[in-house]
Order: sequence, then structure tokens, then C-alpha cells
Amino acid sequence: MRHEIWSEIRKQAPLIHNITNTVVANFSANGLLAIGASPVMADAIEEVAEMTFISDALVLNIGTLSTMTEATMIRAGQAANEAGCPIVLDPVGVGATSFRRDVVERILRHVRVTAIRGNAGEIATLIGVDWAARGVDAGDGACEPRQLALEAAKRYGCVVAVTGKEDMVSDGNVVMEIHGGTKRMTETTGTGCLLSAVVGACLAVEKNALKATVTAMSGYAYSGELASERAEGPGDFPIHFLNALHQLTQHTIPTNRIEVST
Amino acid sequence: MRHEIWSEIRKQAPLIHNITNTVVANFSANGLLAIGASPVMADAIEEVAEMTFISDALVLNIGTLSTMTEATMIRAGQAANEAGCPIVLDPVGVGATSFRRDVVERILRHVRVTAIRGNAGEIATLIGVDWAARGVDAGDGACEPRQLALEAAKRYGCVVAVTGKEDMVSDGNVVMEIHGGTKRMTETTGTGCLLSAVVGACLAVEKNALKATVTAMSGYAYSGELASERAEGPGDFPIHFLNALHQLTQHTIPTNRIEVST
Amino acid sequence: MRHEIWSEIRKQAPLIHNITNTVVANFSANGLLAIGASPVMADAIEEVAEMTFISDALVLNIGTLSTMTEATMIRAGQAANEAGCPIVLDPVGVGATSFRRDVVERILRHVRVTAIRGNAGEIATLIGVDWAARGVDAGDGACEPRQLALEAAKRYGCVVAVTGKEDMVSDGNVVMEIHGGTKRMTETTGTGCLLSAVVGACLAVEKNALKATVTAMSGYAYSGELASERAEGPGDFPIHFLNALHQLTQHTIPTNRIEVST
Repeated sequence: MRHEIWSEIRKQAPLIHNITNTVVANFSANGLLAIGASPVMADAIEEVAEMTFISDALVLNIGTLSTMTEATMIRAGQAANEAGCPIVLDPVGVGATSFRRDVVERILRHVRVTAIRGNAGEIATLIGVDWAARGVDAGDGACEPRQLALEAAKRYGCVVAVTGKEDMVSDGNVVMEIHGGTKRMTETTGTGCLLSAVVGACLAVEKNALKATVTAMSGYAYSGELASERAEGPGDFPIHFLNALHQLTQHTIPTNRIEVST
Repeated sequence: MRHEIWSEIRKQAPLIHNITNTVVANFSANGLLAIGASPVMADAIEEVAEMTFISDALVLNIGTLSTMTEATMIRAGQAANEAGCPIVLDPVGVGATSFRRDVVERILRHVRVTAIRGNAGEIATLIGVDWAARGVDAGDGACEPRQLALEAAKRYGCVVAVTGKEDMVSDGNVVMEIHGGTKRMTETTGTGCLLSAVVGACLAVEKNALKATVTAMSGYAYSGELASERAEGPGDFPIHFLNALHQLTQHTIPTNRIEVST
Repeated sequence: MRHEIWSEIRKQAPLIHNITNTVVANFSANGLLAIGASPVMADAIEEVAEMTFISDALVLNIGTLSTMTEATMIRAGQAANEAGCPIVLDPVGVGATSFRRDVVERILRHVRVTAIRGNAGEIATLIGVDWAARGVDAGDGACEPRQLALEAAKRYGCVVAVTGKEDMVSDGNVVMEIHGGTKRMTETTGTGCLLSAVVGACLAVEKNALKATVTAMSGYAYSGELASERAEGPGDFPIHFLNALHQLTQHTIPTNRIEVST
């Protein structure tokens, strides 16, 4: 089944509307193209609702917030809710500043998101768990990632994915644990942001949000491993990674990489 | 003669002022550097006119419009008109939202552009032909691309380039058809945007706008083919493509790739 | 000792806050990750001070100024001064428009910077020396780069680095000359901008600003040479360059590449 999601993306070429940060916009667009989705970036308040109406998923990423971003994201999010369009929220560095915490809180109050994808420090911030994060890095804390995913999913009534050495995905009932991935991903900017966009593409073709998110994450981790085997360093890793994402429909990802952990 | 345009660019290193979108700014700058032009990106209303005055071409790309962009583009465009500096307009995704249509209409009302470069869906929107575009993709419609190029060129009194499986360029009198290119180009974000910037570089050194645009497009398509022969996937295609653009002065592009089609 | 700075960066993973331009944000982030630093980009006025407070260095780059940027940079800069956080200023294309000159002048009036890094044309503009720059390129002028570095360092009471065929670094007393580097760097957008960010990372772990800046520049030039030996063209140069930066801790950079020139 999971395999089919990647084929469906290539077949349907879902339009993924990204309101994202300026650091990763190019990499996110190329990553979406690599899996066969069709990226569009638009963040003017005048057009975001209209763009969302024609899109198959909306990705909200707060990596480089501007003063306008909050209004823009809420308007796009509400348009998506109205249209039944799935939404992924990526709360980049939400623990770093009170501005980011406030914006994310207001987005989550006004918009029903389908999935949230972040590192442990970001998800911990969302549910008020103390965490020694710094900037946009994950950091360390006293709560297990699987617990963070479960609690956040319950709190916000959506799927929550916590990425790290092991990835955890929860819908508030079960927690799925995904093994794999590579340390190289932490050496390339925007690998988390692109993953959130890829979750959006999977949600665009698969209504079961837990299944869509787990598929996105296991395929992504697997692509990272293939790429890291070929990469000499952080310079060429993204190149091999995009090539691996492009080949996702041709691989059967071993199912023993995913386990129900609760 | 066409060959000479690439040599002239390398010799003159024309300054190309880009008011472009945040997704492709880096790729556009590197592509312009690859052919020997000198890119500059500046979009603050306070400085665009002054920047345009010292530039050899201006490229207006509406990929990620902001509330300020319209005023900025019009001011830069009027400065370019005053200075006799050629202008390329890239109406990215103009069919996707009414905001984009309105902004492009107002730009075209206040600024005389030298060339417009878009896909079939975008050019169809400009001349009011029904088109099933979606987001920033080309889509399908009931009008031949060669007709779109011709009609749009007549309407706006400038050169119009329609990119697709075959590229069409018209000055309102003749239509030139350019064969070649590669499907890989559709898998890398910003290949259309960079092409518009390359058209700008050709216009900077060649006054005949039809010749400049045809040269840009045939050299670009040829570079794409060379790159696709070497690329393993969409990840490394842009790398080979920039290398191929860098070599453009050393190739003789077969003339049978270009034909007058009207 | 210089060698140790690269090891310290990898050990401490200093958080480098970049307020930078949209063209090079991705490349700067990946370059900082390559040397083991942790990049963060944030430019909303609401959060820059808070972000700077948790950062180990602040990099101000005026490549694509917006109307908000001046206020944002001054607020972040004053927060950095208060926190004792080192600041690098990159006055990209400052000679191109009066807006850039005014903004840089006001930043330098309100913020004490630790180092300024620019090409000869940019540094000449800062100290009022006539210079035939154009856009963001270096251009030519009647003053020796070593003199520019020395004068600017005296004028602003900070370390000034002038990059070019030979790099010059001065603290207002001595001028250090760094040999090496590669022409390929001028064919990739943002190599100057990333260097400024790398200077920031070195300042974050080494209090002696002259030593930190000289280390940054010599390691950077050396990485460029290693990369240019492996690159086929401007397309793959940045890939090899990031890989070379990643290996910096493993190389001993020949000391005869650096000489005191005054």
C-alpha cells in the first residue's frame, strides 16, 4: 500500500502550495518535483486563499517569518479548511523566540491542521515540555520522542511526526516508529522542511493521514540512506538525495523498518 | 551570428537586474554567471530605479509576488524605459490567481517590455484564451503555441516566447520554432525563470530582440540536451546544465533546429 | 592555532544568526553546516533581538535590502552589542545605490561591528575612495587593496577584510595578506556572502578578531583551491567546495600563504 502512494503522487502530480522560508524554498520545490508533485510558492495575502483553493495540499513553514506571514498563513489555512485541503504545519525553531511561539499558537487556534512535523525540541515547545533547544536545532530534553508525538497528537487532534534518530508518528492513539535515515540529513539545510512538504504530497493522495505521514517518513529516510551511501560529503549529498527521491516508486521499502511502538 | 551573442555576453559581462522570486534567485544568479553575465538582485522600492539605471537589462519575474512587488516592478520598469534598457517579463503562474493577472496587466499598461517569456498557459492567460493551467504549470488548451506567440506579440508589441515541447518565438510578424530541449527541464524548479534571465542577457548585447530571444532559447535548449545526456536524475541535472551553459561559446548549435514557422 | 579554530567550530557548533539576502540564504546555511556551525536565519523585527541573544555571532548582509531591513539589522546589531556577540557586516553592492550607502552608514553609526568583509569596490565606498564598481562586482580603483583594508579598519575601529585576487585583512595596525583562492569563486553566487558567515563562525570561537578573520579567509581560499581542482565547471564547483569546507579540520594549511604586509 505504501508503495502505491508514491505511484499515485507521480500519477496525479498534486499541486502543493508552500508558504515557506526563503532558505529552503528552492530545495523544497526541487524535492517535490523529484517525487512527481507540482510545487507552487505564493505568500502574498492577496492571493494565498485563491492559490490554496486550487491546491491539493498546503504546507505552512515558519522558518523565516515576516510581519505579514501570520495573517497570510491563517488566511491560506482557513481557505484550506474550507476546501477540505490537507495542511501540514512545520513549526521551525518555534522554541527559539516568543514571536514564533505566539504565531504558531495563533495559527493552531484558527486553523485545523492535518499534520505537524518537527524535531523533538519543536514539538516539546508546542506542548509546553521543557527542552534545551537552541535556534532551529533539536536539542535535548527529558521526554521520550514517542511521548512527545503522542501527547502533541492528542492535544492538537492531528497527526504529529517527531523526527530524530528514530522518527515517531502518532495520531493520538498509536505511535509508529520509523527506523533508518542518515546523519547526513542534519548537514543539509532544509531536509526537515522538505520532509514536511513531502508529507503534504502524501496527504494529497491518501486520506488516511497516519498512513500518508508514515509513508512519507519511511520513504524519505530510505532515500536518505541510499544517498548517503553514494555521497562523498555534505556538498553532493542533496544531489544524490533528490535522485533517490526520484526513484522512490521503484523501491520496495522493507516493512520491518516501521513498527507500532505503543 | 547567434554564436557571437554568447561571446559578446562573456566579453561585455552585462549587468542583469533581476526582480525575481525567492525560489529561483540563487539558480538564476548562478545561471547568469555561467554564461558570463553579471547578475544583481535588488527589489527595495528605494533603490530599484537607481539599480536599473546602471544595468544592461531588467528581468521582471512575478513568481512570488509580495504586496510591494507591483510598485517596485513598475518603478524599475519605467526607469528601464527611460534609460533604453531592455526588459523581459516572466508572468509566472499568471493564470493561477486574479492578483497575478491584475498585477501583470498593470505592469504591461505602465511599462513597455521588450520580451515576454512564459509557458503556453501563461501566455494564453495574457491574451484571454481559455486554458486549463494549474498553479505554475503549463497545462493544456485549445490554441496552438505558435498562434499564442503570434497573437500575444501583436497584442503587446513585443517579442513573445512560448516554451513547451517546441518553443515558439514571435515578434508579431514571423514565428520562429525552436526544436530541442529535454523533459528534465520540467523536473528542476526555475528553468523557465532562468531562461527569462538568459533572454535578458542576450537582449543586453543584441538590439534585434527577435534574434536575441531565439538565440537565448536555442542555446538554452541545446545546453539542456547536453546536460540530460550526462545527468543521472533531477538531482544532478542542474549541475550539468550550468556546466553546459558555461560552455555555450564553444559550441556551434545546429541551425536546422530553428525554423520560421509562419 | 589556526587549525584549532576549525576544530573548535566543529566542537562547539556555534549558532550563527544570519540576516542575509534571499539569493544566498541556502548556500550560506549549507556552508555553515559544512564547517560544523549551526545557522539560523531570522529577519522579522519582532524576533531578531531574541534570536541574537541566543546566538554566538551575528552576520548582517545587505544583498537584498527591503524597507524593513535597516530597522531589523540595527535592532539585531544592538542586541548583539549588548550581549557581547560578535558581528560581521557584509556591505554587498554598497556602491551601487545611495539607499545601500545610507543604510550601511546608519548601521555603522548605531552598531559596533567586529569585522567588515567586502570586495575592494565595497570597502572603497565605505571610506569614500573613488571606485569604478558596477552592481555587486568589485570593479577597479586607484587605491591598493591593502591600503583600503588598513584605512577602513582605522576608520571603523574593527577588522576589515578585502577580498580579491589577494585577500587583505587589517585591524588598523597591521595588514595580513592571504594568498590563494580560485577564479571559480567569482562564478558562483554568494561565495563572498558565505565567507562573511564563515568569518562569523570563526569569531564565535576565537576572541582575537584579526586571527579569527585571517583563519576564516585562508581556510576558505584553500578550500576553494581544492574544489577547483576537482570541478569541471561552475555547476559542480559549489558541491566540491562544500565538501572541501567540511574537510577543513583535516588539513594543515601551509603557513607561507599568509604574510604580514605592512
